[in-house]
Amino acid sequence: MTGTVYLVGAGPGAPDLLTLRAAKLLERADIVFHDALVHADTLALAARAVKIAVGKRCGRQSTAQKFINKRLVDAATAYDIVVRLKGGDPMLFGRAHEEIAALELASVRYEVVPGVTAALAAAAEIGTSLTQRGAVRSVTFATPRVGEGEGTNNWSNSIAVADAGAIYMGAGQATSIARELIDAGMPASLPVAIVENASLPDVRVIYTTLAALPAIGNAGIAGPALIFIGKQFSARAAAASQAGLSIARAPARRRG
Amino acid sequence: MTGTVYLVGAGPGAPDLLTLRAAKLLERADIVFHDALVHADTLALAARAVKIAVGKRCGRQSTAQKFINKRLVDAATAYDIVVRLKGGDPMLFGRAHEEIAALELASVRYEVVPGVTAALAAAAEIGTSLTQRGAVRSVTFATPRVGEGEGTNNWSNSIAVADAGAIYMGAGQATSIARELIDAGMPASLPVAIVENASLPDVRVIYTTLAALPAIGNAGIAGPALIFIGKQFSARAAAASQAGLSIARAPARRRG
Repeated sequence: MTGTVYLVGAGPGAPDLLTLRAAKLLERADIVFHDALVHADTLALAARAVKIAVGKRCGRQSTAQKFINKRLVDAATAYDIVVRLKGGDPMLFGRAHEEIAALELASVRYEVVPGVTAALAAAAEIGTSLTQRGAVRSVTFATPRVGEGEGTNNWSNSIAVADAGAIYMGAGQATSIARELIDAGMPASLPVAIVENASLPDVRVIYTTLAALPAIGNAGIAGPALIFIGKQFSARAAAASQAGLSIARAPARRRG
Repeated sequence: MTGTVYLVGAGPGAPDLLTLRAAKLLERADIVFHDALVHADTLALAARAVKIAVGKRCGRQSTAQKFINKRLVDAATAYDIVVRLKGGDPMLFGRAHEEIAALELASVRYEVVPGVTAALAAAAEIGTSLTQRGAVRSVTFATPRVGEGEGTNNWSNSIAVADAGAIYMGAGQATSIARELIDAGMPASLPVAIVENASLPDVRVIYTTLAALPAIGNAGIAGPALIFIGKQFSARAAAASQAGLSIARAPARRRG
């Protein structure tokens, strides 16, 4: 057992939003297990590595987590530098803890390399800070996802009590998200920003309100999407609405 | 007015946790306005740029935000590539919104380059994911800071209702943080992890409980620190306690 497993954040999508550390590790990697959403240019950095796609993509076939865990442990017996390359950051909605638990159980050496999480790339796209001094001092990152056999999820109260919210993996559940947040006490008029494919050329931004959020079900969102809720999005949402662009491609990435 | 202002995340501290995009921008930059905490090796990438330190460092002298805003606008009239380099990510506790508002008011072209935020580097240091599938599905990022003349801050309820919490800029207020979170309904026995100087050679990790959190006032925390609260830290906290390391240097960065 001589190898080290690196759990590496690939960032939000654009290949140049990878960290320098991750890029160097990929160049040295012997084997790379990567998510389906990792950019081809990022994978190309791992020129000498065996590359293995291991999922996961919402609603599509993916490799079971237990099998990924086992493959990482096995790879550490055969290779020096094993990279597990994950979209975004490994420690935020990345299931790193399941892989870490398996690696520790097998006494495999590992290291986590953090990455740019999708919400921060999405905030950059729309030119709106997730926090604002003196006004927005808490932001809750949450997912409404509940897997088979799992307990209930208190995500909606967590967001309702915070000054702002960022929902991961929620675009397919817009109707129930809107209902649960309104039930949790959020005003139906609160502005919502949805950012699909943040940092990629086909980025799309949709501004709406909590009450109108269910309508994004018709927007054909297929890429990874972040849903933001909070008063700090009201100025951009109002501008988009005035321009007849309540469903609009990103207007704010470059300005002036 | 020909220049573009880039609001760039420098990442959590280690120079190789900068993104490839940020590194390239620094190489091309004409002028760089940087936070005090940005690493010297990161600044060195901006080989041809004028470099100007503009704060900010908790409790030390720093440049007033309004003056920074004005300097960014002015620089765009004189330089093509103006970089505003901020610790962590610009959009999470980075005051980017104040700079963006000033740039938009002056019709200055700008772009935000996201970075690795401190909490994710801190989670990597301690090998503990901020979310865990089916168990920890919401995490609130908050700061207890209230500036002069600002309204009240609901940060403690935001964290108490979520499955986990990450507190930025809170190490100097450990006693009031513990009191407010317990008052908000969190069990006094909840595990707490404090990570100082995440991603840097002098990283330090302290495990404690909410009840014992005020004792970190004696730990001499001087660097930037994240405070995590949540049940997912219980295993590491118990191990640190058993090893007599409830106040311990990072045990978990490299394992096996």
